Amino acid sequence: MQFLEEQILKYGKICPHSVLKVDSFLNHQVNVSIVTELANAIYEHYKDSGVTKILTVESSGIPLACMTAAAFKVPFIFAKKKRTINLSEQVFKSAVHSYTTGKYSEIMVSAEYLGREDNVLIVDDFLAKGSALRALIEIVEDSGATLVGTAVAIEKGFQGGGDMLRKEGFKVYSLSIIDKMTESKIIFRED
Amino acid sequence: MQFLEEQILKYGKICPHSVLKVDSFLNHQVNVSIVTELANAIYEHYKDSGVTKILTVESSGIPLACMTAAAFKVPFIFAKKKRTINLSEQVFKSAVHSYTTGKYSEIMVSAEYLGREDNVLIVDDFLAKGSALRALIEIVEDSGATLVGTAVAIEKGFQGGGDMLRKEGFKVYSLSIIDKMTESKIIFRED
Repeated sequence: MQFLEEQILKYGKICPHSVLKVDSFLNHQVNVSIVTELANAIYEHYKDSGVTKILTVESSGIPLACMTAAAFKVPFIFAKKKRTINLSEQVFKSAVHSYTTGKYSEIMVSAEYLGREDNVLIVDDFLAKGSALRALIEIVEDSGATLVGTAVAIEKGFQGGGDMLRKEGFKVYSLSIIDKMTESKIIFRED
Repeated sequence: MQFLEEQILKYGKICPHSVLKVDSFLNHQVNVSIVTELANAIYEHYKDSGVTKILTVESSGIPLACMTAAAFKVPFIFAKKKRTINLSEQVFKSAVHSYTTGKYSEIMVSAEYLGREDNVLIVDDFLAKGSALRALIEIVEDSGATLVGTAVAIEKGFQGGGDMLRKEGFKVYSLSIIDKMTESKIIFRED
């Protein structure tokens, strides 16, 4: 998506360890008009798939999930990373592996909010190794809901998670795919 | 706000320790059309105050902050509870006291996203003792920005935080104020 690539080139900052900072518009400070454009593109892609629910994981996936849910006129759920006092007893849970820390952490969704009747679209801000998407996919499968597909704003193609998921047959719609990142340059995959 | 009171009575669940679960529409599963109504009410209240930025704290404040930012057509920022790899070196930080755990935890905002030129509206889902709002207020004050006021969806009036802030001169706009909660009943403050 050319619009997003332009925003990344304009506002993104390349940091050590292949970190791309887009926290001026996507995941710390959030430019809602940009995120709305991204959400509308996701809607265009999946609008005929009968989506009944959007699923993401806290925190940085929430803004994009929120605007995507607004476009589809369906609710969204954000999986929680901590068992808070008001989470239900019965949850679907799964483990996310963190590339940065090397550790696994649990994510949870209250069992009452996902079920066989749901067609779920998973949304997140970033896709790198794919661990968060895999954990969300597992939760959808455990719940008995139907997985419609996944959508992310920025895929780091060079980390391989997206292509691996595609090979396994999952639908992965990325609004931008970065195939190479050097200290000074970002190279996007052609559409 | 009668609309929100109706949603709370319809979907809210009263749990032990004065916990009100509204995770079917506000802070786990999110009904975006309800949250949009809340955001529009906040916009109506503060629309002439020259708001340039919305500030909240992750995670459960994000959906309301997102839709409020959409109504104002300004960016929003969510303060982070953890120092992630892509947070800037220079941050404004403050401590939030948790009533449940008794512990203090830090919240942070990258210094580059708040400054003297900003008129900030703080938004959150809940207000109980007021610790999160106070921490966000401190961040706004540290940044040199002007605090326009605060807005929350649900104030637990019986926990006193909102009235204390009002006594100190802060603007606290709550879309609903619960003055009493028993095992079976919720009593709202009259407008």
